[in-house]
Amino acid sequence: MKTRDRILQTSLALFNAEGEANVTTVDIANEMDISPGNLYYHFKGKEEIVGNLFNTFDHEFQQILDAPAAGSLNSEDAWFYLYVVFEHIFNYRFLYRNINDIMERYSGINRQFRRLLFHKLDAADAISKELIEKGIMVIPENQRIRLCENIALNLTFWLNYDQLRRQDMPNELLIHQAVFQIMSIVAPHLAEEFNGFYQECATTYEELAAHILQKARES
Amino acid sequence: MKTRDRILQTSLALFNAEGEANVTTVDIANEMDISPGNLYYHFKGKEEIVGNLFNTFDHEFQQILDAPAAGSLNSEDAWFYLYVVFEHIFNYRFLYRNINDIMERYSGINRQFRRLLFHKLDAADAISKELIEKGIMVIPENQRIRLCENIALNLTFWLNYDQLRRQDMPNELLIHQAVFQIMSIVAPHLAEEFNGFYQECATTYEELAAHILQKARES
Repeated sequence: MKTRDRILQTSLALFNAEGEANVTTVDIANEMDISPGNLYYHFKGKEEIVGNLFNTFDHEFQQILDAPAAGSLNSEDAWFYLYVVFEHIFNYRFLYRNINDIMERYSGINRQFRRLLFHKLDAADAISKELIEKGIMVIPENQRIRLCENIALNLTFWLNYDQLRRQDMPNELLIHQAVFQIMSIVAPHLAEEFNGFYQECATTYEELAAHILQKARES
Repeated sequence: MKTRDRILQTSLALFNAEGEANVTTVDIANEMDISPGNLYYHFKGKEEIVGNLFNTFDHEFQQILDAPAAGSLNSEDAWFYLYVVFEHIFNYRFLYRNINDIMERYSGINRQFRRLLFHKLDAADAISKELIEKGIMVIPENQRIRLCENIALNLTFWLNYDQLRRQDMPNELLIHQAVFQIMSIVAPHLAEEFNGFYQECATTYEELAAHILQKARES
């Protein structure tokens, strides 16, 4: 791997583990066993590293959000899609942990993060409209708008909230729990013929949780 | 007003306006036009000030959360209760803006904030159970648990989320919007005879918003 990529990868791991504000470029160089001068040759400071990480995060997130086609309602496909979304957020969780602080200190990120927030809302908007059109979802328009906001809120802060609550859950389960939470928000608005959908999701979640916790106990 | 109380009041205002991390005890003394020594006579540093503010916040919040009796479902009473809850959070919004950062730096607050989170969950739990018992709410048990989590998430992060999205709303409207958001989350689970409840809430919100925006334009 190129030094430049290794710097980005190491920075991301340190930011996630210790919080971006607590990590200096010297910490990053030390962790990689390179000189601060070598690091400086690639990035002119932490701002450039954070900016680069954010751009990658943002670019990939846009692609993920644009991917789904809500052509049918299949709990496995929906679960997988949401898992990818939350896993992506989890991989860059340092951005979300102190988002207000980061947005204050990096004005470029401020603008981009707000744009991403609206992109999340747009994705929820498009998916819900398609589900309504296909007769899968039934919801009055003013409630649909609040539902999309609630989904965007959950996409932004659920992992944070969940980590405030309990700090000892395997990461994989943390992400599945987030997916299940979104399913629980959407389920009450599905058409009657999809009454079984939520029970399917609940079963999926229980099986996944049992499996992951078993694996964690064994390791 | 006593100097001690003025210090706390000034600190709260500065923390809310500029973020707790960006305010020093010297800033607080300067703002009040007193000497740092005078401030130090009352508080041995910022940690003691933050701790005091958090204790007041926490104590009052516990009292607010314990207050409601969900004996009947009256949209005006429910609206008023939730307004008081969100107004309280708004008054101490500095705590929520960088909660992970504050919890890291103040270990005492970490424990108390987590306890408060569980208190929010307990309040949602008690109210939802009472509404079910009275036949006002109809919801399967596994969905009820997710609903309570969603309410606690909204109580913790909605104001943050909403401020990320738009930064120019009158404070009063910001709080009413939060109340309406909670109503929108609960409404789909009300018994059929309460179908009108959500429309009442929507009308209340529209009237309040029109009134507040009118007032803002005039001033």
